[in-house]
Amino acid sequence: MNYRAIIYYPGTILKVVAAFLALPFATAICYAIAQVDSWECLLPFVYTALIFLGAGFLIAPKAPANRQFGAKEGLLIVGLSWIVISLIGALPYVFSGTTDYFNAVFETISGFTTTGATILDDIEAVPHGVLMWRSLTHWLGGMGILVFLLAVMPSSDGSTFQLMKFESPGPQVGKLVSKVRHSAAISYFIYLGLTVVQIVFLLAGGNSLFESMTLTFSTAGTGGFAVKNDSIAGYSVYTQIVLIVFMLIFSLNFNFYYLIVIGKISAALRNEEVISYLIYIVMCIAAVTACVFSVAGSFGQALLDSAFAVTSIASTTGFTTLDYAQWSEGARAILAITTVVGTCAGSTGGGLKFSRVIILFKTAGVSLLNALRPNSVHVVKLDGKPFGRNETESVTGFFLLSFLVVAGSVVLLCLFGNEFSKSFYTTITMFNNVGPCLARNPGALSSYYSFHPVAWANYASKTVMMLNMLIGRLEVYPILLLAAPQSWSRRF
Amino acid sequence: MNYRAIIYYPGTILKVVAAFLALPFATAICYAIAQVDSWECLLPFVYTALIFLGAGFLIAPKAPANRQFGAKEGLLIVGLSWIVISLIGALPYVFSGTTDYFNAVFETISGFTTTGATILDDIEAVPHGVLMWRSLTHWLGGMGILVFLLAVMPSSDGSTFQLMKFESPGPQVGKLVSKVRHSAAISYFIYLGLTVVQIVFLLAGGNSLFESMTLTFSTAGTGGFAVKNDSIAGYSVYTQIVLIVFMLIFSLNFNFYYLIVIGKISAALRNEEVISYLIYIVMCIAAVTACVFSVAGSFGQALLDSAFAVTSIASTTGFTTLDYAQWSEGARAILAITTVVGTCAGSTGGGLKFSRVIILFKTAGVSLLNALRPNSVHVVKLDGKPFGRNETESVTGFFLLSFLVVAGSVVLLCLFGNEFSKSFYTTITMFNNVGPCLARNPGALSSYYSFHPVAWANYASKTVMMLNMLIGRLEVYPILLLAAPQSWSRRF
Repeated sequence: MNYRAIIYYPGTILKVVAAFLALPFATAICYAIAQVDSWECLLPFVYTALIFLGAGFLIAPKAPANRQFGAKEGLLIVGLSWIVISLIGALPYVFSGTTDYFNAVFETISGFTTTGATILDDIEAVPHGVLMWRSLTHWLGGMGILVFLLAVMPSSDGSTFQLMKFESPGPQVGKLVSKVRHSAAISYFIYLGLTVVQIVFLLAGGNSLFESMTLTFSTAGTGGFAVKNDSIAGYSVYTQIVLIVFMLIFSLNFNFYYLIVIGKISAALRNEEVISYLIYIVMCIAAVTACVFSVAGSFGQALLDSAFAVTSIASTTGFTTLDYAQWSEGARAILAITTVVGTCAGSTGGGLKFSRVIILFKTAGVSLLNALRPNSVHVVKLDGKPFGRNETESVTGFFLLSFLVVAGSVVLLCLFGNEFSKSFYTTITMFNNVGPCLARNPGALSSYYSFHPVAWANYASKTVMMLNMLIGRLEVYPILLLAAPQSWSRRF
Repeated sequence: MNYRAIIYYPGTILKVVAAFLALPFATAICYAIAQVDSWECLLPFVYTALIFLGAGFLIAPKAPANRQFGAKEGLLIVGLSWIVISLIGALPYVFSGTTDYFNAVFETISGFTTTGATILDDIEAVPHGVLMWRSLTHWLGGMGILVFLLAVMPSSDGSTFQLMKFESPGPQVGKLVSKVRHSAAISYFIYLGLTVVQIVFLLAGGNSLFESMTLTFSTAGTGGFAVKNDSIAGYSVYTQIVLIVFMLIFSLNFNFYYLIVIGKISAALRNEEVISYLIYIVMCIAAVTACVFSVAGSFGQALLDSAFAVTSIASTTGFTTLDYAQWSEGARAILAITTVVGTCAGSTGGGLKFSRVIILFKTAGVSLLNALRPNSVHVVKLDGKPFGRNETESVTGFFLLSFLVVAGSVVLLCLFGNEFSKSFYTTITMFNNVGPCLARNPGALSSYYSFHPVAWANYASKTVMMLNMLIGRLEVYPILLLAAPQSWSRRF
C-alpha cells in the first residue's frame, strides 16, 4: 500500500488545475477592460489559484521516491483527486458571490463530471470569467484531468496505467499505443485539435469568441453548460447544426480518429462500435421525429429538434433547444434509452457506453443459446474477435453495480418525497452525466436550485445527485471503493 | 429434435386440465341447487371440458414410442403447454358471458401465471363456478401444471427433468430427491397439505367453504384473485392475519418444508435464502410502517396494513386491503423493491427470487473486489458452498434478459401513450406476477379492463402485459425461445 503515491497525485493535480485558472482570469480581464464586468471579478481566480497551489504543495511538496503502485492505489487516487478538485474548484462561484458553497460544489461536480446540470437560475447574470471557468471544468473533466497529467508528466512507470484505466470511460482500457504517456498525449492532441476546429466553426457562424469557446468546451467534454438562460434555443440554425455535428463527433471512440490520423482508414471503418452507434443514432432520430412531428409543425423543424435532442442526450451533453421533457411519453422513452446507453467507449461522454451495450445484448443472446444447448460453448464476439470470459464478467459486473446504484438512488429520492418519474429521470440523467431532467416537472430547462420545496429534502436529494454524477463519471469503482474498508487496509 | 414429444406433453396436459374442471362444475351445481346461480352456469364447464379433451386427443392420441428429449424440446413443451391451456382455459369466461375472448385470455393468463391482475369490473356479479375456476387456475399454475403431470404420470425417463427445470421458479433446479417423479410428487404433497390447512384456518374464522377454498387457492398459488370487489378489505382482522401468514408460507422455498417434514430441522434452519428472506420481510414491513404511520391513524393499523401489503406483494400474491398505490412515494418505492425481488426460489411465487438477489449482490461485491485486486480469485458463495462460474453466469444472464424484457416493455407501453410511472409499475407487477398496479392511476384496486381509453392502445398494452406475465412466470427462456428460429431448427 503506497500511501505517498495516493497523496502525491491528487496534490499534483491541484497544481495543474491552478494553472488552468489562467483562462477564466484572462477572460475576466478582457471583460473588465470592456467595462462589462467589474475589476473585482478577477479576484475569485486569484484566491482560488492560491488555495489550489497552497493545498497542492501542502499535500504533495515533492515527488515520492517510490511511485510504483497497483490497482488499489490507482482507484483511490482517481476517486480522491476528483473529490478534491471539486471541493476547491467550487470556490470561484462562492468568491464571486454567484451561489453558496453547497450549490457551488454541485455545479463544480456537474462541471468536472461533464453532466451539465446547473443550479444557476439566471446564468446571464454571472460574470464572464466564472462562466468560462464553468465551461472549462467540462473540458478538463471530459478527457480526464489525470489523463492530462499523464500526458505532460515526465514519467514512464507502468503504474500510471492504473490511473488512465480508471479515469477513462469504457469497458476496455483506452490505450492507443503501448506507452501510457504517449497514449494520453495522443488523446489530448486529438481532443485539442477537434476543440480548435469547433471554435473556428462557431466563430464562422458569427458567434463571439467567448461564446464559441465556452460552447466548444461544453461540447468537447460532452458537458452541456451553456451561457444563456435558454441554453441553445436562441442560436441560429447554423450554430445548432454545428453543435449537432460536434456533439456526435465527441461521442465517438477516439481510437477511431487515431486510426484515421495515422492513415488506417479501412481499419477505422471496421470499428463495430462506431459504425453500429451511428446507425443507432439515425434510428433514434427517425423514431423521435415520428413522435414529435405533430407538435413541431413542419417536418424540417421536427427533424432539427429531434436530431438536436437525440445527439445532445445520446452524447450525454445536455444542451437544449426546447423543453423536450414536455414531449410525448414515447419520445421521452426513446430519449431515456439514449440517456442510459450513452456514447461510445473511449469518448468524452458518459452512459453505459455502446460497446458495453453490444456486449450485454450478445451476452443475453448467449444466455438464451446456453438454455437451448447447455453442453455447447457459445462465445461473445466483438469486432469479430472472441471476447474473453473475464471481460464479459467485468462488463456484466459493471452493469450490475450500475443497476444497483441507480435503483438505490431512485428509492432514496422517492423516500425524500420526490415523485417517482422525477426520481427516476433525475437519477439516470445524473448517473449518465447528461444533465437536463426528462420528467415533466422540473423539466429540461429549469435549474436544480429548488429541486425540492423542503430544505432538508433539497439538500439530501442534491447530495444523492452529486454522488450519482461522480459514481457515473468514474464508472462506479473508484467512488464506491473509497467507502470500502478493504481499500484502505494494508493487508487486503 | 423430438417433435412427437413436443406435441405429446401439451396434449396430455389438456386432458389433465379437463379433469380439474370437475371442481368448478361441482361448485356450479351446489349454487344452482341453492338457487343462487342458474342451472345454465353448469354448461360452460361441460363445453370447455369437451374442447379440452377433444383438443387433447386430437393433438396427442397416444404416447409416442420415443419420449427422450433434451433441453430444447423441454423449453418448447413448457412454452407451448402454457399458451395452449391459456387459450382454451379462457372459454368458461366466454361461455358464461362474463367477458369477451380477448379479456378472458388475459384473465386466464393472469390466473395460470398466478399474477392475479383482473379485467373484471364487477367480480361479485360473476357466477360462483366461474370464480372457482378462476382461483383454481392460480392453484394449478402456482406449482406448475407440468410438474403436476410429472407427479402423476407413470414415467421414469430422465427427459422429464427438463420440464421440471423450466417450469419451476428459481436459479437452481427444484429437485428435492434424485427421481423427478418423486420430487414432483413430494412438492405437490406439501402443496396440497398446506392448502388443506389454510382452508381449515379460514373456515375456523367463519368464512364460507366457497370463500375459504377460493381464497386459499389464490394464496397457495401466490395469485391474488379474490371473490369480492374490494379484495380482502371486507374480511375480519383474523382472516387478514391468516392470509398474511399463509402468503408468507407459500413464498418460502418448499425445500425448507421438505427438510422439516423428514425431520432435518437444523438443516432447514441453515437455509441462507429462507432465513435472510424472513429478515428482509420484517425490515420491509418496518420501513413501510414508518412511511404510512401518519395516514393509518394508529400504530396497530399501520402495522397491519403494512404487513398485509408487504407480504402480499413480496409473495407476489397481490391481495389488497386498501389502495396502497395512494401511499407516499417512499412506501411505494419499498413496495416496488419487493415486487422485483419476489419470493424464495422453489416456492409458488414470482419475481427475481431471493437466492438470485443474494447471488447478484455477491457477484457485484466480487466485481468490486476484482477491481481492487485483479490478480486474486474471488468466489461467490451460497449456503457456505462456492457457487460455480457457470451458475453465476446463468444468474447474471437471467437478470440481463429480464432487465431487457422489462425495459422493452416499459418503452412499448410509453409508446402506446401510457404515462411513464404507469408503464413502469404495470410492467413490473405483470412481469413479477404480482397483479395490482402501484401507479396512482389506475391504482391497486381497479381492474385492467379499461387500461387505456383508446381501443387499439388498450389491446396493444394488454397484449404486452400478457406476454410479460407469461415470460415472467416461465422465467424468460421458454417464451422468448418459442420465437427463436434456432429452437425449431433440426440442426441447431
